[in-house]
Amino acid sequence: MLADYVKGIRPDKEELKRQIKAEEEKLFASQMKIKEAKLPVMVILEGWGSAGKGSVLGDIIKCIDPRFFKVVTMDKPPTEDELRKPFLYRYFIEIPEKGKFQFYDTYWMGEVTKGVMDGSLSRKKYEDRIRSINITERQLTDNGYLVMKFFFHISEKEQKKRLDGLLADPNTAWRVGEEDLKENRSYKKCLKVYDQYLKDTDRDAAPWFVIDAGSQKWARLQVLRYLNQGIDTALKNTAVNAPVRQNVFRMNPVIRLSEIDLDKSLTEEEYKTRLKALQDELHGLHYALYRKKVPVIIAYEGWDAAGKGGNIKRIAAALDPRGYEVFPIASPEPHEKARHHLWRFWNRLPRTGHIAIYDRTWYGRVMVERLEGFCSENDWQRAYNEINEFEKELADWGAVILKFWIQIDSDTQLARFTERQNTPEKRWKITDEDWRNREKWDLYEAAVNEMLEKTNTVFAPWYVLESVDKKYARIKALEIVIEAIKKALKEAD
Amino acid sequence: MLADYVKGIRPDKEELKRQIKAEEEKLFASQMKIKEAKLPVMVILEGWGSAGKGSVLGDIIKCIDPRFFKVVTMDKPPTEDELRKPFLYRYFIEIPEKGKFQFYDTYWMGEVTKGVMDGSLSRKKYEDRIRSINITERQLTDNGYLVMKFFFHISEKEQKKRLDGLLADPNTAWRVGEEDLKENRSYKKCLKVYDQYLKDTDRDAAPWFVIDAGSQKWARLQVLRYLNQGIDTALKNTAVNAPVRQNVFRMNPVIRLSEIDLDKSLTEEEYKTRLKALQDELHGLHYALYRKKVPVIIAYEGWDAAGKGGNIKRIAAALDPRGYEVFPIASPEPHEKARHHLWRFWNRLPRTGHIAIYDRTWYGRVMVERLEGFCSENDWQRAYNEINEFEKELADWGAVILKFWIQIDSDTQLARFTERQNTPEKRWKITDEDWRNREKWDLYEAAVNEMLEKTNTVFAPWYVLESVDKKYARIKALEIVIEAIKKALKEAD
Repeated sequence: MLADYVKGIRPDKEELKRQIKAEEEKLFASQMKIKEAKLPVMVILEGWGSAGKGSVLGDIIKCIDPRFFKVVTMDKPPTEDELRKPFLYRYFIEIPEKGKFQFYDTYWMGEVTKGVMDGSLSRKKYEDRIRSINITERQLTDNGYLVMKFFFHISEKEQKKRLDGLLADPNTAWRVGEEDLKENRSYKKCLKVYDQYLKDTDRDAAPWFVIDAGSQKWARLQVLRYLNQGIDTALKNTAVNAPVRQNVFRMNPVIRLSEIDLDKSLTEEEYKTRLKALQDELHGLHYALYRKKVPVIIAYEGWDAAGKGGNIKRIAAALDPRGYEVFPIASPEPHEKARHHLWRFWNRLPRTGHIAIYDRTWYGRVMVERLEGFCSENDWQRAYNEINEFEKELADWGAVILKFWIQIDSDTQLARFTERQNTPEKRWKITDEDWRNREKWDLYEAAVNEMLEKTNTVFAPWYVLESVDKKYARIKALEIVIEAIKKALKEAD
Repeated sequence: MLADYVKGIRPDKEELKRQIKAEEEKLFASQMKIKEAKLPVMVILEGWGSAGKGSVLGDIIKCIDPRFFKVVTMDKPPTEDELRKPFLYRYFIEIPEKGKFQFYDTYWMGEVTKGVMDGSLSRKKYEDRIRSINITERQLTDNGYLVMKFFFHISEKEQKKRLDGLLADPNTAWRVGEEDLKENRSYKKCLKVYDQYLKDTDRDAAPWFVIDAGSQKWARLQVLRYLNQGIDTALKNTAVNAPVRQNVFRMNPVIRLSEIDLDKSLTEEEYKTRLKALQDELHGLHYALYRKKVPVIIAYEGWDAAGKGGNIKRIAAALDPRGYEVFPIASPEPHEKARHHLWRFWNRLPRTGHIAIYDRTWYGRVMVERLEGFCSENDWQRAYNEINEFEKELADWGAVILKFWIQIDSDTQLARFTERQNTPEKRWKITDEDWRNREKWDLYEAAVNEMLEKTNTVFAPWYVLESVDKKYARIKALEIVIEAIKKALKEAD
């Protein structure tokens, strides 16, 4: 991309001025269209030190109402806390809301290319990063984001000239860091790494635009022109659904709800004895997890009144409160709805060595949101793959992922609902919505079966907890958690 | 992809049989759906020698009505003629019609990986091939094709065992070629090359499915299962428009029809003198082209009665008939309409050293097909980029590409139409359709302006021929052709 780079025809000074003005007016006019179409726009600026990213950015945002855009600077190393999250985390949480313009003064490219340059990123890790980035950019564009990526390109000589110029003036010398000088000294090596990165992340939905940054005005015109073109294209695509992707993940054998044997139970005594033993064991493992920095994700889904709450309580009771968190998942807040549907879960990840327990999860998209029409058909059909990709990211990060489906039959639910209704201190637990959902049992069952079929991946499999006898389900959950943690600890050795 | 390959859980014998049967029935039932939805399906089988591609293919096609599928074998080196076409040519012309199943016993992977293995493909050429393949697969899926790619994977040991088994039996020994033995001897090197290729061509719209080919029945189940899943997904997507892609190509400055100065003319004498000289020069250059094997593509578009025919005649008259061809482009035939819109142009490419002249072109998509509703809005909006990509392939192949827009004003057209109508020997040249098109002059002008703006790439620019004075236009065309050929010959040195 940088090697066979074509500069294009640069207009003369007057023409340049005229064209910049025309493009700026176009960008100004686009603002309202973006807002109306609820288009989220991400403009990512990367490039050589002193190539003029900052100045061009400064000029361009002058055309936009300050209420409609935000500038995010990612040009800093990850914090201690961020290092205990997956690579994508600190970037993904910075995606804009619908209808907003967001400019990034460098994004994930810097961390990756720097890692290659200083040798801290292995070939394998580099490929993982590229995969993560490509998948995320595609998920964003599939979800209607416009992602525009610019690389500001200057020659070795030009960079040297600019750095020398800055250094010669005491007023600007402070702007030149050791990093910049190093980049220029090893220009050819950097060029190779940047070129490879650009090639590896050049995808149809979010291609790279290499900007000839030989002059600031000319660079500005190119960015403006591509940006306006990009917005035009994206506005055309707002009515276009993204295709449903093929499932490429290995699956475990299919589970069907109707085939689950619900006659499993434990006596009160068995239950008590085993509960105590298992909780003690889990308690000990929690410290080992913490030391080995293995993150654990425990996701609960199941019918209303199937016993999720009580089940979660028995797990949590065994854990050190400083090392786990329970996330109850309700319907998304407005600021969450205005973003990619997985954004709120990226915001609720455990740190390494911690356990996160989710009382309902990201699977709401393919159950309640699907059945209640809270998202489009295309949205939930795409979601299976998006969720598999999300969980693959977490698995590659090293997380233990356990997904529990708590199963009861319809009669058991009715009995429990009725009991809740008739017991004053339990009445808060039952709402009209529960009764309404119950009427759609068959639709939910079909949706759950499809979900189990399409997301039962080898790296994040589903486990059924037979919960007509809640005691049985609790013991089974504890056993599965313990076994999975033991396995992960062994692998972490 | 092959390195961190997960095998998945293989069912026991009875279960395998049961599941194969179920998937075969599903595939059988899909046939009619594919036909009804007019879905074109490409199933590409790649993999290690002796991994069992052929046997699995043989089993699978038994579920499909022989009238609905075709097996294409690309497992042979390109012919002399094919070597004089772009790399993609021999593959692209083999794409299926809508509603047809086509199986490929190896496709473009083999030629590329073989080239890497034997060192005949440079790093740069390899990257070009990958780019060509990824773009084409994406164009196919954007145009509604289902592209399913399977790689049959076996271990070094397993391959050795199978080859030894075949060799031991005189009835099967002939099936083992030197290529197969060589592949097994250099298994590790091959693995690396294959793995890289799979990674480089793994795209969302056409991902790789790696098949654990440890047993034939198990391999068959995997292929059937992924294929059925893929068909389901594709049938869901038939109603989905592919997004319009961003323009990533460098453009030459914009041409607008209204800004063209049409007052250019030549005297009869000037014309005659220069015509003779230019035709002589072109005649000589044609032989040089032939020797240097540079292919030339001359594309003519323009208003009715603008003088395309006469212009083409003056170019052709200078050429050796053995080295050029004129392709008059009318509306597509049914078998052409049933394929990707560029298919009929892939079928009409010159060989290296030859000149192809197109009287109307692939730009019909964004003019007449757009304005007469012969394709969907999404189709023509995507076409600008698809055409740019097509021309980029030809440019990378080494072709000189000249695109002429022959321009006249509306009054001139009226005068010429009237003259045709009133001159008995010219009357065949004018039809009712010409008059109908003329009524849409303004719509056409807007479409042409958009076309010029979106396809005026640096590697395949448009040239305007001012043709109110046809003599002027002819001389200008000859000059442009000559200049471009001279430049290309110089570069070919």
